[in-house]
Amino acid sequence: MIIIKKVGKQSYILSNPITIKESASIVGPKEKNGPLHQFFDKCLEDEFWGEKSWEKAESKIIKETVNMVISKSGIANADIDFCFAGDLLNQCIASSFGLRETNIPFIGLFGACSTFVESLIVASSFIDGDFAKNTVCAASSHFCSAEKQFRFPLELGNQRPQSSQWTVTGSGAVILTKDGTGPYITSFTPGKIVDMGIKDVNNMGAAMAGAAEDTIISHFKDTGRSPNYYDAIFTGDLGYIGKDILIDLTESKGYNIKSNYNDCGVLIFDKENQDTHSGGSGCGCIASVFSGYIYKMLQEKKYKKILLIATGALMNSTSSQQGESIPGIAHAISVEL
Amino acid sequence: MIIIKKVGKQSYILSNPITIKESASIVGPKEKNGPLHQFFDKCLEDEFWGEKSWEKAESKIIKETVNMVISKSGIANADIDFCFAGDLLNQCIASSFGLRETNIPFIGLFGACSTFVESLIVASSFIDGDFAKNTVCAASSHFCSAEKQFRFPLELGNQRPQSSQWTVTGSGAVILTKDGTGPYITSFTPGKIVDMGIKDVNNMGAAMAGAAEDTIISHFKDTGRSPNYYDAIFTGDLGYIGKDILIDLTESKGYNIKSNYNDCGVLIFDKENQDTHSGGSGCGCIASVFSGYIYKMLQEKKYKKILLIATGALMNSTSSQQGESIPGIAHAISVEL
Repeated sequence: MIIIKKVGKQSYILSNPITIKESASIVGPKEKNGPLHQFFDKCLEDEFWGEKSWEKAESKIIKETVNMVISKSGIANADIDFCFAGDLLNQCIASSFGLRETNIPFIGLFGACSTFVESLIVASSFIDGDFAKNTVCAASSHFCSAEKQFRFPLELGNQRPQSSQWTVTGSGAVILTKDGTGPYITSFTPGKIVDMGIKDVNNMGAAMAGAAEDTIISHFKDTGRSPNYYDAIFTGDLGYIGKDILIDLTESKGYNIKSNYNDCGVLIFDKENQDTHSGGSGCGCIASVFSGYIYKMLQEKKYKKILLIATGALMNSTSSQQGESIPGIAHAISVEL
Repeated sequence: MIIIKKVGKQSYILSNPITIKESASIVGPKEKNGPLHQFFDKCLEDEFWGEKSWEKAESKIIKETVNMVISKSGIANADIDFCFAGDLLNQCIASSFGLRETNIPFIGLFGACSTFVESLIVASSFIDGDFAKNTVCAASSHFCSAEKQFRFPLELGNQRPQSSQWTVTGSGAVILTKDGTGPYITSFTPGKIVDMGIKDVNNMGAAMAGAAEDTIISHFKDTGRSPNYYDAIFTGDLGYIGKDILIDLTESKGYNIKSNYNDCGVLIFDKENQDTHSGGSGCGCIASVFSGYIYKMLQEKKYKKILLIATGALMNSTSSQQGESIPGIAHAISVEL
């Protein structure tokens, strides 16, 4: 029995490319002041959006982002076969509370900040395998709920190291469909868990760079493509430090990605004026940057072929307190016109 | 465009039934003293298994369960295309730390106690859609790490209400393959999030019963089957209270499941002698009861057709402290010889 869609060790070419029919993004006030603000569908004025807690605000953000993308697509909820979603909160409550009224079969995912691309891979497989015609995929994060959960109470005004990243408040969602005119998801490379032995919870970019390298090199080897096959390669979210490490790691394997590579965590904030240190992070970072900026660049044909690699740090605050290292994972998809 | 594998509103008949080639289960000391002890592959003498924390012990349990099922199957890790797994710990660290050395592409799932059947559904779709030949699916939970995380420090010796359930220390894992001689996964019904408005975190069975009802009724309506199509129907884990509620709820919709229905949380502990109140729960409960007991009953042809419905409570301790209700979800698969 041959797995006809698999190429190489861990990459897949879709027999019928999946259309990304529509996207939506909602972000917070800091992202509103960032360089990509004009690409997001909605920018919030504050981190609460009328809710009584940051967790409830995050649920509202993913809820309204999903409602928005469904509305923009013109597809009825009853015609959406699956919702694939996840977030960073313990037990993924942003998704489960935010999406409890959709009335769509729900598959909860957890890949930390890799969740958005993980959802695209799973949805693509379901659509390509004739288990779905239309799906919605979404992920979210929230600066305040993440700081509270993973680091320190915000009220403490704790100083952040230069290597730390700033969790994006925001959500991105897309509708994938079996029929359509693109942009198309044409292939994907799911990632393995890679542990570089890094224990510094304030340097997630370094912890995840090894996983990004593993997936991106596997993608190139499996598909026989070189970096210049793509107009642009995006990771999310390695930040400045992880981005530089990934450039070095891939170069050491004979692949030069420097000329056409960037990171969503680098793109979403202004390095000089926004004081986020190593850039943005969080499930909502690549989700909103793809759904806002990159998807619109594809629609405008400014990019025709992109590789999108989402990276996740698979730890929690207990594991770090127990002296564990930070395993990473990275999932990649290619999107082409 | 017709979705050929979908029947009714949300059920799927597999075009090529997926074989559950092998199973493995490892459980803790309390489960060792329960009525199913002889069906588990390994029963631990204590909750630590030589590790320094309960979290590390849970990681070891899922790691060794996955290693065991792969070993029993005779399939090389390199020939396993995907690992689908999840657990109850914050950010699913039991799975990510336990499975970081498998070197298998990893798709992290979160469906609370529904994770095991969720993993079977996603894996079946990947295999049926020609994205995988062999997959491993696993889930775990641990009484001590769960109590610490969701409820009270164990050292407090807190009294548990009669409606509470006892999180199973254990893991179950299976290998699904494209080729094989069964038992076969023949259909599945993924669940929607259903919120009954219940806020009592010590009565998860009641909170999840509505989701179980929604999925089981959808399964019967979509497939045109009645409860007696199956030799046995198992939920996991509604416990005694949720089981009774589900019987009532389904009866009110015209389906009588009383004669062939049981719950994995009811089966795993002795009601009279083990003082678990409303029975067992946790991702590891249905995972170990299926991988241990039910799978062996299928192999021995004591059951020829079963319906397996895993239920999850999609909350965390913060959401409950903020006064939120407890949304539930339930995913169903049918397994036939």
